[in-house]
Amino acid sequence: MADTGTRKDGRQADELRQVTIERGWSEQAEGSALISFGSTRVLCTASVMPSVPRWMSGKGKGWVTAEYAMLPRSTNERMDRESIKGRVGGRTHEISRLIGRSLRAAVDMRALGELSIAVDCDVLQADGGTRTAAITGAYVALADAIAWAQANGRVPASAKPIIDSVAAISVGIVDGRPLLDLAYVEDVRAGTDMNVVATGRGLLVEVQGTAEGAPFDRSELDAMVDLALAGTQRLTQLQREALA
Amino acid sequence: MADTGTRKDGRQADELRQVTIERGWSEQAEGSALISFGSTRVLCTASVMPSVPRWMSGKGKGWVTAEYAMLPRSTNERMDRESIKGRVGGRTHEISRLIGRSLRAAVDMRALGELSIAVDCDVLQADGGTRTAAITGAYVALADAIAWAQANGRVPASAKPIIDSVAAISVGIVDGRPLLDLAYVEDVRAGTDMNVVATGRGLLVEVQGTAEGAPFDRSELDAMVDLALAGTQRLTQLQREALA
Amino acid sequence: MADTGTRKDGRQADELRQVTIERGWSEQAEGSALISFGSTRVLCTASVMPSVPRWMSGKGKGWVTAEYAMLPRSTNERMDRESIKGRVGGRTHEISRLIGRSLRAAVDMRALGELSIAVDCDVLQADGGTRTAAITGAYVALADAIAWAQANGRVPASAKPIIDSVAAISVGIVDGRPLLDLAYVEDVRAGTDMNVVATGRGLLVEVQGTAEGAPFDRSELDAMVDLALAGTQRLTQLQREALA
Amino acid sequence: MADTGTRKDGRQADELRQVTIERGWSEQAEGSALISFGSTRVLCTASVMPSVPRWMSGKGKGWVTAEYAMLPRSTNERMDRESIKGRVGGRTHEISRLIGRSLRAAVDMRALGELSIAVDCDVLQADGGTRTAAITGAYVALADAIAWAQANGRVPASAKPIIDSVAAISVGIVDGRPLLDLAYVEDVRAGTDMNVVATGRGLLVEVQGTAEGAPFDRSELDAMVDLALAGTQRLTQLQREALA
Amino acid sequence: MADTGTRKDGRQADELRQVTIERGWSEQAEGSALISFGSTRVLCTASVMPSVPRWMSGKGKGWVTAEYAMLPRSTNERMDRESIKGRVGGRTHEISRLIGRSLRAAVDMRALGELSIAVDCDVLQADGGTRTAAITGAYVALADAIAWAQANGRVPASAKPIIDSVAAISVGIVDGRPLLDLAYVEDVRAGTDMNVVATGRGLLVEVQGTAEGAPFDRSELDAMVDLALAGTQRLTQLQREALA
Amino acid sequence: MADTGTRKDGRQADELRQVTIERGWSEQAEGSALISFGSTRVLCTASVMPSVPRWMSGKGKGWVTAEYAMLPRSTNERMDRESIKGRVGGRTHEISRLIGRSLRAAVDMRALGELSIAVDCDVLQADGGTRTAAITGAYVALADAIAWAQANGRVPASAKPIIDSVAAISVGIVDGRPLLDLAYVEDVRAGTDMNVVATGRGLLVEVQGTAEGAPFDRSELDAMVDLALAGTQRLTQLQREALA
Repeated sequence: MADTGTRKDGRQADELRQVTIERGWSEQAEGSALISFGSTRVLCTASVMPSVPRWMSGKGKGWVTAEYAMLPRSTNERMDRESIKGRVGGRTHEISRLIGRSLRAAVDMRALGELSIAVDCDVLQADGGTRTAAITGAYVALADAIAWAQANGRVPASAKPIIDSVAAISVGIVDGRPLLDLAYVEDVRAGTDMNVVATGRGLLVEVQGTAEGAPFDRSELDAMVDLALAGTQRLTQLQREALA
Repeated sequence: MADTGTRKDGRQADELRQVTIERGWSEQAEGSALISFGSTRVLCTASVMPSVPRWMSGKGKGWVTAEYAMLPRSTNERMDRESIKGRVGGRTHEISRLIGRSLRAAVDMRALGELSIAVDCDVLQADGGTRTAAITGAYVALADAIAWAQANGRVPASAKPIIDSVAAISVGIVDGRPLLDLAYVEDVRAGTDMNVVATGRGLLVEVQGTAEGAPFDRSELDAMVDLALAGTQRLTQLQREALA
Repeated sequence: MADTGTRKDGRQADELRQVTIERGWSEQAEGSALISFGSTRVLCTASVMPSVPRWMSGKGKGWVTAEYAMLPRSTNERMDRESIKGRVGGRTHEISRLIGRSLRAAVDMRALGELSIAVDCDVLQADGGTRTAAITGAYVALADAIAWAQANGRVPASAKPIIDSVAAISVGIVDGRPLLDLAYVEDVRAGTDMNVVATGRGLLVEVQGTAEGAPFDRSELDAMVDLALAGTQRLTQLQREALA
Repeated sequence: MADTGTRKDGRQADELRQVTIERGWSEQAEGSALISFGSTRVLCTASVMPSVPRWMSGKGKGWVTAEYAMLPRSTNERMDRESIKGRVGGRTHEISRLIGRSLRAAVDMRALGELSIAVDCDVLQADGGTRTAAITGAYVALADAIAWAQANGRVPASAKPIIDSVAAISVGIVDGRPLLDLAYVEDVRAGTDMNVVATGRGLLVEVQGTAEGAPFDRSELDAMVDLALAGTQRLTQLQREALA
Repeated sequence: MADTGTRKDGRQADELRQVTIERGWSEQAEGSALISFGSTRVLCTASVMPSVPRWMSGKGKGWVTAEYAMLPRSTNERMDRESIKGRVGGRTHEISRLIGRSLRAAVDMRALGELSIAVDCDVLQADGGTRTAAITGAYVALADAIAWAQANGRVPASAKPIIDSVAAISVGIVDGRPLLDLAYVEDVRAGTDMNVVATGRGLLVEVQGTAEGAPFDRSELDAMVDLALAGTQRLTQLQREALA
Repeated sequence: MADTGTRKDGRQADELRQVTIERGWSEQAEGSALISFGSTRVLCTASVMPSVPRWMSGKGKGWVTAEYAMLPRSTNERMDRESIKGRVGGRTHEISRLIGRSLRAAVDMRALGELSIAVDCDVLQADGGTRTAAITGAYVALADAIAWAQANGRVPASAKPIIDSVAAISVGIVDGRPLLDLAYVEDVRAGTDMNVVATGRGLLVEVQGTAEGAPFDRSELDAMVDLALAGTQRLTQLQREALA
């Protein structure tokens, strides 16, 4: 199929949905952002906590961790709560770990000193791309929480804990054509689905490509990575504006 | 202490905090409302589901249930997620059951027919009164979900499943003085804390008074119920305006 | 409906079932009571433990907590064990918390010093009113455990940890008529069900009224509270006789 | 060490503690018994249920199962509840399975037809020998539940589901001397501890001997089995008297 | 660092460890393989089951699923069992899902018909690359289970459920140099770690690259994918020999 | 049925299946053995850990514990994993405790000093007698782990922690005839099933006899114990050869 024409929602193949970042949404958290990728809305809050997990204690280094969850009716059909099922599902675990790893790529743990920052990403409304929106918003909340820690004497004002920024976007092959930032209706039709996390400097932190339908070849992989890196560059710009 | 003068936030003893109801906040749910009582913000979504719990099946009646939860950083200190702890706490259970019972007082289950409505109340930000805000917002989401069900042929258009409205408010004795709609700083100082659920017609659905500090006498009980019934009457008016 | 005539079991509207308190039933616990409200039988044991929960440590104050449970065949149909289901149900949680709060209203935690008393209330046979029987019996077990702690040097003999007594009773509106101390057959027919916890001095500790059927009005609330306070006064007398 | 002299509580080596069986203790269960072996007290209730577990369905046979549990303060130090820990311990599992197997040895499942009997054995007070008291009391509850099922048409009156009785007793080697029916203070000093389940006809159902301290030789095994079979014979007689 | 010289264990950068596949290790399973990548040993068993999960029922299609686990002392330090912790960890979930998705890329679910194949991959000994060894061995077990199903009439002999093979390998950047098939000592030093799943035809099924240390650039991504595709091609050959 | 003739697999009544012990199977554990009783294969690994459980701390004594588990497809039909069910079953608990008690009978805890040894017994393939194979193999792994601890200075070289060996075997009454070391097909037909654990010196550690079908009499008990003690004597010899 030709790589021309617009998508259902009128976007070009390499176009992001409308992205908004409402920084400081929460009055309680040290850093927060309500981020939207189109209809996908994720509330990210960053909490500064005075200690590190036991296995890290005494090393003079900090830690950043993340938890992802979806509200039961964030999706088109209501899902059971994981608290009520009494166990966290595999997908939730997987995404929480991905967000945590991504954020840690932006932070110098030694400069942070022995404190933890927990970033909670709760999906209020889901329309595809919740994990990439979560990472992108979580970075903004994290940056503000670190600024708070420096302003409040928890981290020396002269330290430089932030070494880069991180943002993430999805790409996929839909009807043979690589598309950026899949909405839910595109995601379910995608033969291959890839999530890419990159830093503000354009380096790769995570590349996760999965053939949901037919396997993909090397040239499709290349095309998807190209699209994604252009997308994360634009998200980096939006993060900078939000944090300005 | 004299029963005069204003409170920390400038309110009179019998004054509600600013209440806002953002009806239809969710694009996914059949009914929804984002309600605020001051800084307390609760997202309520109502989901219409085609069947009833097994123990109710075959009776020609519907069911309404509710689940309450707090986001981990809705509060001043981050709380662990109940999904990760693997069990739902007693307070969460208690409030979920209270919301469910309150909503059922507004519905004629026979007119609903054999379908369920699950109302999720997720506290995005907490500053006292989360359960009463949840009940008040949940009714709005429920009313819209029932309207949806009637507009979409799930419930006969001629049926009258809604028989009354419900709203809830907290009252308490703080420094010997009965106050309406306690904010968190008031709640922690309250000797007695009471939650009252009432219908739009002014009848009582739930009265839950607890002496956290010193026990209370009969006249204090009466004063609290008086305050609360005036408060729920004003909330009823706000619900009507939101649903208009 | 007129407030005349007797009930199925021959009682007047304001009459308790036969209440017996077998103090010191257990050879193991520091305090214990097997209490009956008619066919409802609850075994209450109070255990003195040398420390307080971590969050209370170092404040020089004690703690009283309670756990409620039903034997699987205490009821007319066998229930699954909560240990086997792997989770404690909402109702169990709710009642355990209620009993704990009620007992704490009778104790000066500072006079107790840094020790805990855990009161277990296990329902051996259920016929309505299990939570109110549990509270009433638990107070007797608690008083004996505190006496034991004072006799055994765990609490100074000169301290006065007991500042009042607590007892509890249910009331309800059955066929439009307020009744005291509902048996199971009455409880299932009650439109409104209320549990009242009061001290020996006649002050209120908890008031929990729930419209299971039709909502109730202010005058019904008043009538139920009147009945309940007369009932708890009689239970207070029976507690005193048991402890004499 | 010579096999002479009495024990701490004045018993002979081959003497049971005082055994009492309060048949029909529960008003709710189809069969029940409160059994005491000295200070050990176990409430046994048998529940007749209209179906069998799925894996047995359609074979025309019945099933008998058992659950054992201890109240938290049945012992000298309070134990945490298994419901709160969220899991059933290994010892509890083991004893529940033992009771179930023992009871099934007394029943012709084909004569029972497709129904289940669940026997709950809840230890109200523990002083050694709780599992053997539980088995002995559970048989009485079971026999009454089967009688109820025959009297109420759930099992044909002409059927003979009961094919034998079962009773159980502990034996042990304490200070080199075999003793029957160990009390708790003897049990903790026993080098070897054995539980024997036998039928009314004197056949063996279970023999479980464990060297807690030093291993035991063949002649000690023989001596313990001899003592135990004499003990179960006396218990069989007491069961017959209770059921008469 | 120059891309020359051998590794600690004497391998070239693009060399696999010794791979052995012991097909048919289990007498119980319909298909099985004990696979080794050097000291990493994984037992893979495939079980044919007569039905599909409920959500797939009635669609005429089959299902393939996988579960991964490590024995507690497969690693250098003993890990607690997930059964005892009562919950499956995030890493376990993640890998189980990865294996399942990878295997499904090799199967035509419609040709399989309504039956499930569950592939268990239990790590007996771990020295890096357990998930890639698991996928590679699991395919052999799966192929045999499908052959069994066809030989035993569960799947028509004329059907072609196997549409391709799958194999997987790890690659990483260690001291700036891309290496194939990381042993544990290499894995802990790798700045970037990538797992690639590819089909026998050389198409990509999964690409999962993670910067554990410094982020990686586009040319490093390309070098790793090249190495991995050469590695999976050799594994494909070994699978063919094992299945011959 | 006469007590003559051979069994399905050609063995005499008092004959063990072929037993093999592959000592040192694991490269990771301090001691290990892969043991086979015919088709039953159990991997036993012993892990030396530097501390004891909290309740034993400070007593100058060591501890030995064991965990038993079956791989999901070790059996003829696949079983669900206990990690996924979220709870360990009663049978698993029971056998883990049995193995631990058995091993402790071989060790002088005071000579071991304050360290723990955890022995994991994972059934790779099951054909009856998994618990007895596990005990017999676990002793070999344990002996090697203790030798390792002495060679590596964790336990004084002059200490004598091993005071005896332990081995275990099953016996049963099949068609009225006592048989040694039951294979699965014999086990399911056995009226009585007994497991006996004995030391190398011929003393009894555990005797667990269960009437699965008809109860057994005293002479059958005696015959089974005789058979078992001869069997454990031969296993003791095989353990000595493996450890030589």
